[in-house]
Amino acid sequence: MRFDALIHNAVLMTCNPFFDIIRRGWIGISGGKIEALGSEPEDWQRPAAHAAIDAHGGIVMPGLVNTHTHLPMTLFRGLADDLPLATWLQEHIFPAERAAVKPETVRWGTLLASAEMLLSGTTTCCDGYFYEDAVAQAVQAAGLRAVLAQGVIDRPAPGVPDPTQNLVSARRFCQKWLDRTEMIRPSVFCHSPYTCSRETLIRAKRLCDDFGLLFQIHVAETRWEADHIRTTAGASPVGYLDRAGVLDEHTLLVHGVWVDDTDIAIIAERQAAVSHNPESNMKLASGIAPAARMLAAGIRVGLGSDGCASNNDMDLFYAMDLAAKLQKVAMRDPTVLPAETAIRMATIDGARTLGLDRQIGSLEPGKQADLIVVDIRAPHLTPMHHPASAVVYAAKGSDVRTVMVAGRVLVRERQLQTLDLAEILFQVNRMIPGTGS
Amino acid sequence: MRFDALIHNAVLMTCNPFFDIIRRGWIGISGGKIEALGSEPEDWQRPAAHAAIDAHGGIVMPGLVNTHTHLPMTLFRGLADDLPLATWLQEHIFPAERAAVKPETVRWGTLLASAEMLLSGTTTCCDGYFYEDAVAQAVQAAGLRAVLAQGVIDRPAPGVPDPTQNLVSARRFCQKWLDRTEMIRPSVFCHSPYTCSRETLIRAKRLCDDFGLLFQIHVAETRWEADHIRTTAGASPVGYLDRAGVLDEHTLLVHGVWVDDTDIAIIAERQAAVSHNPESNMKLASGIAPAARMLAAGIRVGLGSDGCASNNDMDLFYAMDLAAKLQKVAMRDPTVLPAETAIRMATIDGARTLGLDRQIGSLEPGKQADLIVVDIRAPHLTPMHHPASAVVYAAKGSDVRTVMVAGRVLVRERQLQTLDLAEILFQVNRMIPGTGS
Repeated sequence: MRFDALIHNAVLMTCNPFFDIIRRGWIGISGGKIEALGSEPEDWQRPAAHAAIDAHGGIVMPGLVNTHTHLPMTLFRGLADDLPLATWLQEHIFPAERAAVKPETVRWGTLLASAEMLLSGTTTCCDGYFYEDAVAQAVQAAGLRAVLAQGVIDRPAPGVPDPTQNLVSARRFCQKWLDRTEMIRPSVFCHSPYTCSRETLIRAKRLCDDFGLLFQIHVAETRWEADHIRTTAGASPVGYLDRAGVLDEHTLLVHGVWVDDTDIAIIAERQAAVSHNPESNMKLASGIAPAARMLAAGIRVGLGSDGCASNNDMDLFYAMDLAAKLQKVAMRDPTVLPAETAIRMATIDGARTLGLDRQIGSLEPGKQADLIVVDIRAPHLTPMHHPASAVVYAAKGSDVRTVMVAGRVLVRERQLQTLDLAEILFQVNRMIPGTGS
Repeated sequence: MRFDALIHNAVLMTCNPFFDIIRRGWIGISGGKIEALGSEPEDWQRPAAHAAIDAHGGIVMPGLVNTHTHLPMTLFRGLADDLPLATWLQEHIFPAERAAVKPETVRWGTLLASAEMLLSGTTTCCDGYFYEDAVAQAVQAAGLRAVLAQGVIDRPAPGVPDPTQNLVSARRFCQKWLDRTEMIRPSVFCHSPYTCSRETLIRAKRLCDDFGLLFQIHVAETRWEADHIRTTAGASPVGYLDRAGVLDEHTLLVHGVWVDDTDIAIIAERQAAVSHNPESNMKLASGIAPAARMLAAGIRVGLGSDGCASNNDMDLFYAMDLAAKLQKVAMRDPTVLPAETAIRMATIDGARTLGLDRQIGSLEPGKQADLIVVDIRAPHLTPMHHPASAVVYAAKGSDVRTVMVAGRVLVRERQLQTLDLAEILFQVNRMIPGTGS
């Protein structure tokens, strides 16, 4: 037996159900999958492999799963910060989207996002935007794994000027990418309960059910939205979606900031999943989602970065750290959302929110070889008492040295293998020149 | 005229009173100080210099000022996280300190912290610990600028087993380091209002006044402390310190989480300064300090990382981002604590809290050449609409390429010039081996 690739001299953070950590371990990869893993005793003989990667004592863990992105919005990173939400959206982001969003810019913005995600250890993302076909082509070029959704909104949108065509456009996207490649799963993303009609929500959900796809929606992000839906529909945003019949185990609710115990009970009962985006919620002053209470209710909760206009980066290491710290201070309890839970949210639980947990999210034989090597030979990771603490509270995306997706090395020695970073930076700077200070 | 060093092709973020940003600028350094700076028009002739550094379009800004550290506590990074505060302190940190803290470990722990600070762009820190003489020697070896305080506590402490000797020890430290080098200023750090008697506080403050030094104290960190002082002394922690007469413009109050409007008015009236440590306050679930309200009251507020047992890193870029985001979500207002304010807190305002703002904290002729170059050729810093947004919301310590303190290059191309990183990591791992998962 000879593995395609072997990673050795590693701390294996398996993220399996027992959260097993193998202090000195190896992992063998063949056919794009994890074939075997184990520890390296004193008399260990290194198995044969076509390629060997010495982790130098670093942490090997599942690639991170970003459950909420708007990849092309890297183009609007830092365009307009520290502004009231309405000003930010109406006077800056929407006009910028109208002016700049077309297939060509979406493609380069997505390549930029892909470069950023790979270099910081994310191997799977769940996206929603417009011109999603261009997103899919860019993500495919990068070699990432992704759930990609054409956005649906009852307003004129980039590429879909006539709102009556939004579901037609979404259906076309789903049909094109269904079963096209194992790496990309299509999906539909309804913008929100206040920008999509009840009928649109129901029809979009039916479209997803027709193909067995994930239905995504921003919900209960702001207090304004919660008040608005209660006034216009007589229910909380979650209650309103439930009454529309769009909540089930194939629904991903994004944000879920303004949810009360009744809403949490509904989400749990319907077995819907939640994408928690603490950085975006903080930066936009939306509020603090009760992530720990949702987890306690048995809800699947993953981590998301949101788009780069509201974060402004895609480093999930930061999101893990912030998710843990924010829940602690919000609940005045330092034991809430411990490091291990934050890591689960960014790996196996993220995979569960996307329905991909049989393929990815942990280091277990038979799973896809989507994994990262975190270099620990750095002052901020020394000494190393507990690998989980180090990953959450001290490591950064920039500590990721190697990234593998489906057994393919996409980042080697911190260098992208599938993307031309200089070309991407050049093209983005050409299309979206910095606008001055 | 020939500069000792010239940095060119830079975005100069001056942090001067107008927060001037020079989009394409240069800065000339001689005799350890900034001699001149300006923009580079089309016909610009590069001034003569013994050494030239091309910033490659990167951001040159003042070196960051960390206003609250316990440098040797890098040794206890990640030792015991996600625990109740009392368990963490009494069962883990205090025993670890009793077992491990001696001059030799303090020295290596400080060298480790110095490496971490330099590599992430911090050029000045304000510290309090025990065996501070060993801290001072290590900081001096690194070439950092620092305010260093011997800790004072009315309990047996490392190196000071007899509490009646704590002020003797502090005085000895101050006398030794007073006027010894421009880079290090001694100080006294009283642990807290509940671990130092009123008499100790008054005597420590008098010691500081005798020598013209900064008096530091943790205050109003936890709700427990606020309740305790109110019960035992009939005042808020800040009110208690005020009644003891230890608040003036040479006092640095660390944390200030549990302060009300009356406390804020007292701090402002006495012109005392505050060190804001959002990461530590969140991780230990202490609470959210009203940093924006303190700033609005005219109080000098700097940023601090706190010790590595409660953060767990020393990256002030993260602290800037978190300070901004935490205030926004706490006050439900995205305009609160904008990027520029966060940068000021980490530079010129940090310098002001330490009484060093005539020497450091901004890029202005005559000031010490304490500065950093942030490499912007990275996906997460592209595109660059506003340099201040990029620094706060997207840049990380790992983007720092060059670090200069008093005109001396301490980090070049991300490599430490004064410290042997491999030796430091080896020694720390030898002294404090990771204790397993």
